[in-house]
Amino acid sequence: MEEKEISRAVIKRLPRYYRYLGELLESGVERISSNELSERMQVTASQIRQDLNNFGGFGQQGYGYNVKFLYQEIAKILGLDKTYNMIIVGAGNLGQALANYVKFEKSGFLIKKLFDVNPRLHGMTVRGIEIRLIDELPEYLQENEIHIAALTLPKANAREMAELLAENGVKAIWNFAHTDLHLPEDVIVENVHLSESLMQLSYNISRYERDHNKK
Amino acid sequence: MEEKEISRAVIKRLPRYYRYLGELLESGVERISSNELSERMQVTASQIRQDLNNFGGFGQQGYGYNVKFLYQEIAKILGLDKTYNMIIVGAGNLGQALANYVKFEKSGFLIKKLFDVNPRLHGMTVRGIEIRLIDELPEYLQENEIHIAALTLPKANAREMAELLAENGVKAIWNFAHTDLHLPEDVIVENVHLSESLMQLSYNISRYERDHNKK
Repeated sequence: MEEKEISRAVIKRLPRYYRYLGELLESGVERISSNELSERMQVTASQIRQDLNNFGGFGQQGYGYNVKFLYQEIAKILGLDKTYNMIIVGAGNLGQALANYVKFEKSGFLIKKLFDVNPRLHGMTVRGIEIRLIDELPEYLQENEIHIAALTLPKANAREMAELLAENGVKAIWNFAHTDLHLPEDVIVENVHLSESLMQLSYNISRYERDHNKK
Repeated sequence: MEEKEISRAVIKRLPRYYRYLGELLESGVERISSNELSERMQVTASQIRQDLNNFGGFGQQGYGYNVKFLYQEIAKILGLDKTYNMIIVGAGNLGQALANYVKFEKSGFLIKKLFDVNPRLHGMTVRGIEIRLIDELPEYLQENEIHIAALTLPKANAREMAELLAENGVKAIWNFAHTDLHLPEDVIVENVHLSESLMQLSYNISRYERDHNKK
């Protein structure tokens, strides 16, 4: 399974399959046909068959998919069969919101600490997770194995902080700052640019109005 | 300009051009060649030429792009030449974080109110924006023109709330709840699924480790 190359587009769709399969498992469903799954997910059955055939998760005709098997295979592909130690750099509202997501822990993302420049936050906790001063970060990273750092700092400080994280061995950054980070190639960056998402919304509103007014 | 159909893939890339062009404008740059822009954005110059040719924003050979013109054209396409009244439903950390982004206002997204079920938050403000009780929402929507609602509620309450918003005339929802909303076709939904973004990160970590260990 590990050796097979799966296309980027399929990978992008996997978390959604994973979510639906998880919900099915929770409600005790053991198998499901591509047609049923198609109806739930509002994706064509042929798209589902195509995507899931990557995992060899299809039984014989008429049986449908084994929900648990597929769920586990997708988890493996997404790296969710491991756990990741994570820190959050920037303990403002967004950093605290991330620390409050219990769901991340359930998927294996263990939030170990928050860090912030604000001395007033020092020693406070969010859902039991301690907030430390950013000055302590390099030493902390030397002493602890951290796989992922969520970067929830203002744009102005984000690049410098990302470099400091990379220099101290962090290999994956979840970047919420609205700027592109320039880091060594072996550092993985996943961006969440909220204002770009909002612009997709305004684009669609404008397009809808344009199409609507045309008629 | 309005009549031309631009591909979805280009639209997805526009906010990034918009950001870079805005930064250039701020630093007083009036024109830029595709090669210079290519270097800054780490995208090939031919990709840039292809993308931006959609806007007729290219001068003669050797002149390069007129930064301000392109910036304004992209703004129009993205619907950023208008303003949008926005509310945030769910005034927890994430809702408050969104309310604190001054940048949204600068792009024309005016945050009018936050709403929450928690009576303890009632009457409080975030950056001067009032938090109201969710019970008051239908009446508020009848009396005010709201273009966008950001939905920062837990999954369990999100669908029902989205339906209520749609019934009361909200035509665009910025959905942070980790669930698919089922709404009439004329309601535009833009999803921000944070845990799916995190899964792309763990996928890339796993893939990197796999590729690395193979060697």
